[in-house]
Amino acid sequence: MALLIIEPYSVKVEVKSNSTILHALLLAGIKIQSICGGFGACGKDRIVVTKGLKYLNPPTKCERKWLSEEELSKGYRLACQAKVIADGVVSIFIPMESRIRLGEMKAIVNGFMRKVKLEPMVRKVHVVLPKPSLKDLKSDYERLLEALKERGVSIHKVDLDVLRSLPHILRKSSWSVTAVLWGNELISIEPGDTRREVYGVAIDIGSSKITMHLVDLVSGKVIFHSFLENPQLAYGEDIVSRITYAISGKNKAEELHKLLINAINELINVAVKQVGIDARRIYEFVVVGNTAMHHFFLNLETRYVSQAPYPPVVRRTVIVKAKELGIIGNLGARVTVLPVIGGFVGADAIADALATGILKTEDEVLLLDIGTNTEIFVGNKHHMLVCSVPSGPALEGAQILFGMKAVYGAIESIKIYPDGEVEYKVINNAKPRGITGSAVIDAIAELYRNGFINSRGKFRKNLGLNRVRKGKYGYEYVIEWGKKTAIGKDIVITEKDISEVMLAKAAIRSGVSVLMKKLGIKENDLSNIYLAGTFGSRINPENAITIGMIPPVSVDKVKFVGNTAIAGADMALLSISSRKEAEEIKSKVRYVELSAEPDFKREYVNSLYLPYKEE
Amino acid sequence: MALLIIEPYSVKVEVKSNSTILHALLLAGIKIQSICGGFGACGKDRIVVTKGLKYLNPPTKCERKWLSEEELSKGYRLACQAKVIADGVVSIFIPMESRIRLGEMKAIVNGFMRKVKLEPMVRKVHVVLPKPSLKDLKSDYERLLEALKERGVSIHKVDLDVLRSLPHILRKSSWSVTAVLWGNELISIEPGDTRREVYGVAIDIGSSKITMHLVDLVSGKVIFHSFLENPQLAYGEDIVSRITYAISGKNKAEELHKLLINAINELINVAVKQVGIDARRIYEFVVVGNTAMHHFFLNLETRYVSQAPYPPVVRRTVIVKAKELGIIGNLGARVTVLPVIGGFVGADAIADALATGILKTEDEVLLLDIGTNTEIFVGNKHHMLVCSVPSGPALEGAQILFGMKAVYGAIESIKIYPDGEVEYKVINNAKPRGITGSAVIDAIAELYRNGFINSRGKFRKNLGLNRVRKGKYGYEYVIEWGKKTAIGKDIVITEKDISEVMLAKAAIRSGVSVLMKKLGIKENDLSNIYLAGTFGSRINPENAITIGMIPPVSVDKVKFVGNTAIAGADMALLSISSRKEAEEIKSKVRYVELSAEPDFKREYVNSLYLPYKEE
Repeated sequence: MALLIIEPYSVKVEVKSNSTILHALLLAGIKIQSICGGFGACGKDRIVVTKGLKYLNPPTKCERKWLSEEELSKGYRLACQAKVIADGVVSIFIPMESRIRLGEMKAIVNGFMRKVKLEPMVRKVHVVLPKPSLKDLKSDYERLLEALKERGVSIHKVDLDVLRSLPHILRKSSWSVTAVLWGNELISIEPGDTRREVYGVAIDIGSSKITMHLVDLVSGKVIFHSFLENPQLAYGEDIVSRITYAISGKNKAEELHKLLINAINELINVAVKQVGIDARRIYEFVVVGNTAMHHFFLNLETRYVSQAPYPPVVRRTVIVKAKELGIIGNLGARVTVLPVIGGFVGADAIADALATGILKTEDEVLLLDIGTNTEIFVGNKHHMLVCSVPSGPALEGAQILFGMKAVYGAIESIKIYPDGEVEYKVINNAKPRGITGSAVIDAIAELYRNGFINSRGKFRKNLGLNRVRKGKYGYEYVIEWGKKTAIGKDIVITEKDISEVMLAKAAIRSGVSVLMKKLGIKENDLSNIYLAGTFGSRINPENAITIGMIPPVSVDKVKFVGNTAIAGADMALLSISSRKEAEEIKSKVRYVELSAEPDFKREYVNSLYLPYKEE
Repeated sequence: MALLIIEPYSVKVEVKSNSTILHALLLAGIKIQSICGGFGACGKDRIVVTKGLKYLNPPTKCERKWLSEEELSKGYRLACQAKVIADGVVSIFIPMESRIRLGEMKAIVNGFMRKVKLEPMVRKVHVVLPKPSLKDLKSDYERLLEALKERGVSIHKVDLDVLRSLPHILRKSSWSVTAVLWGNELISIEPGDTRREVYGVAIDIGSSKITMHLVDLVSGKVIFHSFLENPQLAYGEDIVSRITYAISGKNKAEELHKLLINAINELINVAVKQVGIDARRIYEFVVVGNTAMHHFFLNLETRYVSQAPYPPVVRRTVIVKAKELGIIGNLGARVTVLPVIGGFVGADAIADALATGILKTEDEVLLLDIGTNTEIFVGNKHHMLVCSVPSGPALEGAQILFGMKAVYGAIESIKIYPDGEVEYKVINNAKPRGITGSAVIDAIAELYRNGFINSRGKFRKNLGLNRVRKGKYGYEYVIEWGKKTAIGKDIVITEKDISEVMLAKAAIRSGVSVLMKKLGIKENDLSNIYLAGTFGSRINPENAITIGMIPPVSVDKVKFVGNTAIAGADMALLSISSRKEAEEIKSKVRYVELSAEPDFKREYVNSLYLPYKEE
């Protein structure tokens, strides 16, 4: 372990050998301009090493490209390239140009959340006990129970660990102690009065990203948030390949489980150091994730989740000791894993519904949490259906010729004019390197609106446009010419790219249509369409309607709600009634297995048209 | 591990290197004549090694003393001397002369027990589930719950381990499974119909001996019992020295805890092999022991139990997963540790009261569980007091010049005539080697009855008796002359020996007196005196009354009840209502801390007289 001191924040963090400085900053919750995602492609994550340069690797080829000799000699490095290679103290300074405004990452780690009454499962009661004497022979535990009873608190269960620590703590603290209750279970006992220190952690395990909120359960505020890439990505971007790996041999599932636990512990470790609290004051975790992540997290069998008829192992809320899962925190800390609905529609979807309150309204709503799998809710408090569709990675830019994630140098929006010319916006106003999935949606919408492509997404013949040409992969539209791009190549959108995105939108739209038809709901009945998730926050709703990804509604009905999965987890952490509501959502929402729906195939085929083929 | 095959029983057992054959036989539950307790002092534990002699140590000096050259050449060995020293298969034959009648050990491992209705906490329900389909999308767990609900069984809690194994077991068994319930918690799930296999284990952790009963919870019968020396004996015979060790440094308490767990696992391992059942079919343990053993078993702090005012950590029933304590059995097995009353009066005393039903009667009773500490109950269903007195090891023969345990060669009873001559009985009719504690009581009673000693236990002057003389340790009475003993020395009882036993009896009697006076009970009010424990089973009640150890009652009111501690544990295993009764006993019985009783000192002084000095 090396010690990294981060100025101007005076933050200290331990760094494992072979970790990059960027990784350490991420863990420390310190945001830095690293818009390419850590591949040395942006050169923005500049830091100055003021001490301990010798504990780092020598400058890489990539750094030599972005930094001058003079800068290197002054200790400039790129955070994504500089690695700790030996134990020692390294001090760095983050120059102004590399710092990021705090708000910039917010959309990703926070989401819309209904207000809830602060009433967490965990509560603390401080008591002072009479000392035992020959006239008062009660056991330590019965003595504590009596004092609690006088305060109107009754205990139904106690952890053995509490009994083990009780005698020592009572005497060390001169019989003044704080009892920590989880419901009516006594989960910890602490010397003195610790009522001001009550923390909980909300965790959203996404297929690609694990997001963590550290919540002060006294104030009800999120006091630290950070995220890590889901380390399972090394075993496949999609859930099915991870399950395939998990069932490929002994201990493989355990391995994927441990990856999650370790990542969560890393997040917690850094969070408590940054905020300066004792990890033993974390008493509760609320975890959400899709069914596969839910199962991996609990180390439940994932095999049957990926095979028809896709039954989960368990749907209802699972409560387990953090200790049993090997998660850092108080020895008696509890982990609540919110219920799953069915198929791949998991606890994250429950959290979406919880945070947005879609089951509380008389109005019909549509909620989409768009990702590699997209969860779709349709209905109101009286009837609510949900399904999951495999929308694939195209919307994240994968399988698109020049597709990329929404990072530095990505074209994030596109406008095409009737004359065939184009305008676009690049993240950080850089030279373009590629196109995001949402920009491809823009392009498709614009090409279709201008009549350059037909309802099947094919270019019309003889358009006589400069930018439309036959390329290596069939017809394509040139967004930017090579001389103006960062990659020296023309950036184009091909018919195949259009087709990929249309497959994804068809999956989503057909799911939406099946659910709406099952409930007899028309577009006009929808009071709101909620778009959740990272991708959902970037989309241009007008264009999404134009290509038919979502039903045609007035654009002001489309609301971006952000990461409602973590927001729902926060709610469950903050309030007992939200937990109960999560169970109610599980029971009230009807899961629709699309493959068993007779209409699904026809809807899918209809959805392959732009915007949608009405019959 | 060597494999030991024991003929003529065809029992196979694994033996650790450096274990004696006697140890292996003990574990295997095979009784053999080993009356000296395994010190090579009796030569009775003869076995014939028919195969694998080379895996044993060479004959010891002790074996050469007891076995002829011819016998040795035929493979004769002593079980307490022959040790397995290498891995291999060893076959032995136990000749008729070494076998023991089954009843002989019974008093030690069994006790009187009231009849109870068979209604264990653990029960099994067999169900066949409908398979999931696209029309029936329930999760595996909800599917199981529905099937159980149809059978009128509702589950309030489930172990994570059950969820982990559920999908595989359901499919492996074609959806026909047996649910194992502990109360309304689902603790295990098994393929097929296993309703006939339900086992529980009762354990009495005595300061010197750990006794185990393996109980078939379908028939309600004890199907195997065995015991081991408490391995903590290496840290002191008495509880206080063990506690002193436990608090002498880090991990010392843990060490004493582990010793108990390992011994219990050894007992279970052997039991399941002998009976031929799967240890995973053990779902429940009921454990009793005095407060110190209770605390060591649960790894609770013992420090304050040995310091005034002696508060236990917890009194009420403690329930914990066997897995959490590292005890072998089903992954979901539960351990119930019966409540403790107060001071050193622990779960074993609760079990005594449970087994004998002393709280169910209108009649006043006295119950003594005599050991190094003696628990004393006095009262009836309306009022019941209990205390514990340190009766010390004298009654077990320790601190007596020629004292020994009740094993081979021990004088176990003594009759002295008015002419000063003596008659005695030796265990196994051997030449005498020493005297048991109960025989010393006989001797004191007889000497007093004949007027040879006064009420202070001192020999009267000028008795003119051959056998009374002044020896090295003051006046003494010769039981047997050296030429007739196995040790070549005169076996005597000294005034100091008499004094030691009188101290023990004074402790007991003063406890009895204080409790009786507190309740205003006279001797004549007592309907019964129950004597529990190993020593309590050997005592001559008439002599115990003569020396004043117990109050003067008609001898037929004295009942020997044996090991009621294990019997009470059996009851709790067999019946839910017995568990509830144990809690009631805990609440109803009032613990009396003698050191806080103003009368105690005077009573103790009065009890130092023979039989007892009435004021």
